[in-house]
Amino acid sequence: MTKTGRKAVAGNDRGGNLTVDGDRLWDSLMRMAEIGALPGGGCRRLGLTPEDSAGRALLVRWAEAQGYGIGRDRVGNLFIRRAGTRPELAPVMMGSHLDTVMTGGRFDGVLGVLGGLEVMRSLDEAGIATQRTLELVVWTNEEGARFAPGNTGAFAFSGKYTLEQALAHADLDGTRVGDALQALGEAGDEPVGNRPVDAYFELHVEQGPHLERAGVPVGVVTGTYTVRYFNLTIMGDAAHLAQPLENRRDALVGAAEAILAIRRVGVSHGEDGRSNASWIEVFPNVRGTVAATVRMSCDVRHADPEVTQAMAADLHAAIGDASRRSGVAMQLEPFHRFGPILFDAGLVELLRDTARRRGHAFRDIVTVAGHDAIALAPVLPTAMIFVPSAGGLSHNEREHTDPAACAAGADMLLHAVLARAGHA
Amino acid sequence: MTKTGRKAVAGNDRGGNLTVDGDRLWDSLMRMAEIGALPGGGCRRLGLTPEDSAGRALLVRWAEAQGYGIGRDRVGNLFIRRAGTRPELAPVMMGSHLDTVMTGGRFDGVLGVLGGLEVMRSLDEAGIATQRTLELVVWTNEEGARFAPGNTGAFAFSGKYTLEQALAHADLDGTRVGDALQALGEAGDEPVGNRPVDAYFELHVEQGPHLERAGVPVGVVTGTYTVRYFNLTIMGDAAHLAQPLENRRDALVGAAEAILAIRRVGVSHGEDGRSNASWIEVFPNVRGTVAATVRMSCDVRHADPEVTQAMAADLHAAIGDASRRSGVAMQLEPFHRFGPILFDAGLVELLRDTARRRGHAFRDIVTVAGHDAIALAPVLPTAMIFVPSAGGLSHNEREHTDPAACAAGADMLLHAVLARAGHA
Repeated sequence: MTKTGRKAVAGNDRGGNLTVDGDRLWDSLMRMAEIGALPGGGCRRLGLTPEDSAGRALLVRWAEAQGYGIGRDRVGNLFIRRAGTRPELAPVMMGSHLDTVMTGGRFDGVLGVLGGLEVMRSLDEAGIATQRTLELVVWTNEEGARFAPGNTGAFAFSGKYTLEQALAHADLDGTRVGDALQALGEAGDEPVGNRPVDAYFELHVEQGPHLERAGVPVGVVTGTYTVRYFNLTIMGDAAHLAQPLENRRDALVGAAEAILAIRRVGVSHGEDGRSNASWIEVFPNVRGTVAATVRMSCDVRHADPEVTQAMAADLHAAIGDASRRSGVAMQLEPFHRFGPILFDAGLVELLRDTARRRGHAFRDIVTVAGHDAIALAPVLPTAMIFVPSAGGLSHNEREHTDPAACAAGADMLLHAVLARAGHA
Repeated sequence: MTKTGRKAVAGNDRGGNLTVDGDRLWDSLMRMAEIGALPGGGCRRLGLTPEDSAGRALLVRWAEAQGYGIGRDRVGNLFIRRAGTRPELAPVMMGSHLDTVMTGGRFDGVLGVLGGLEVMRSLDEAGIATQRTLELVVWTNEEGARFAPGNTGAFAFSGKYTLEQALAHADLDGTRVGDALQALGEAGDEPVGNRPVDAYFELHVEQGPHLERAGVPVGVVTGTYTVRYFNLTIMGDAAHLAQPLENRRDALVGAAEAILAIRRVGVSHGEDGRSNASWIEVFPNVRGTVAATVRMSCDVRHADPEVTQAMAADLHAAIGDASRRSGVAMQLEPFHRFGPILFDAGLVELLRDTARRRGHAFRDIVTVAGHDAIALAPVLPTAMIFVPSAGGLSHNEREHTDPAACAAGADMLLHAVLARAGHA
């Protein structure tokens, strides 16, 4: 018995007993996790740092050992190419990211990249050529933990950002994406995007609890939540701590009322509702002074766009209440929105078929989180495969997906890609 | 009529009609306020920065114009000396600080320094020599806004810190106090402390509303509040925002419950009670991740030490409640305490007498805030004079004390110092 409990799965596609090597996939995941490893079992490979670059270099060594082509575009997206027999056809893409958040896990992003590598290796091992070229893509700076916002590479590829815009994004020290790419040698000569792609598949961990709760190893992602982001500014008045409590307009007390109000909005919309206060900046934030101002990021999200709309209205009312309760002025401004985005209907149906053919229990699922696939969906036929996250935990060092589920996800990817790329 | 409505005040001390020049004092306050001036009318002269040093240089130019001696000790405390006729006697000190918080006012600290200068100038003008030497001291880094904690110079002088400890304190970039002193040329050759001082008087703005409410221009400070500081650590669990609300242990939600609980402790102990959550640090503090941990500074304070003790017990209970409500573990640890400190009984009585003789309405008051005088009180006979802060506002760009009150405070300082230093 292998570590993954891998066995030949009967299927009726041309791939027959073809499947991935779950042990090899797991080993590569664990090897990658050594780069930027943290004491709690997780990883820190912030986008466009030496750790991120080291992760990419390991992937390139593995790819070169298989004889695949390596390409990089000007925004640093990395392409591993397994040539097809009909180079005139648009390629089939797989991909995700290798960068992590500050205390990230071993699977978020990495599974999609190394799952794609495993697909290519399995085809090599089985001696199967495809008609379309397969491209495995590592998108630049998905997480945006150092250079915010994220999805830099995918948004540049999709044309949402011009190359100049993408390269000009700066981190908190003023270093620009373009400077970091040059310093690391991660920028290539290929133009960014603007070329035909037959299909883009992304395998990813769910980052929520639904697949685990449903007891299925595979989720076919049909589209996204609808999310509305806001910037909240809380305007108190700086004062010495000697100021009596009843005379203060303490922005931190206002922030506390706001954080609890934001949470109540999500709770009141059931288990599919989410509301978040995540990023906060307090000024002047010193021990001797009542806080003058607080800036905060918050958002509401739901699978149903109409409910998201209702939540946004509730959020405005809740912030008004928090302002009255704390006696501190607050301003809530729309910052960004996304969704609902529906993935390509043909690819979604192909994934459902693949799960049935391959014997993987699955359910349809809508993603709460943002992904490179979502950035690409407006311009490419796109779909995603989810596998369970233990306890729904992600962006956490204890993030975990068991080896059998990783293998099931990669098996889904293999057969969907093969169906689309065609046996030679 | 002058700006300050200054008039000769009848008195029965040897100073007779001697008083300060309120206009000159006000002009010097406004000149100093131009250094590090902020758009909202306040100042930023963080301790041991070029702005702080420029403020000191202006004072030194004024002092040199009067022919006073200038000295600096090894921790950068600056001494302006007006020689007495009996140098064998211990000097009488006045002082405060010129450094400010990030968005500080024009009076906090500065009034005590420039009030002291005005005392010396007024004695010059009246042709009065004193037996004891007068020393006006600018204490290094009172606020601690860049190099925390504050009171660096006063604590080094009092022997609470060794010189080595004081010089080793570092800012967030790792720059040490000793390095900053060297870079600015603010360190001198004089040993720190360990010498006799007859008395130390500090004139300061109240930074609270009590004198204004009482309608009196002068407060005789008898001692300090009793304050207990705590560090609060809130231990949630990092998670992707896709995590359902009911599965989260969101440290920021825990912090919100804690901030409101801390405030309730102070409110429940009446108008003399204060409770504060002022400094907060959130990790990882990014838009895409549920907060894993929050660290926070909090304190409780009251004029009555027994009430402070009761408030500390209430705080422990309140944090326990906040932890249960938010489902997030919290740890409250004692960090520091001070008070009650009583100022020197003889000096306090001298200040009350001086107010009566000079015709200044006054009341006794206990300070809620920390001051250089408090750091010095354990080793020197020490007392403080307060003047009103408009609206009780301080550590705020709109901090304001009217010219007549500034002059009244300086007049108090003049006559108390003269009584102690003795006419030659």
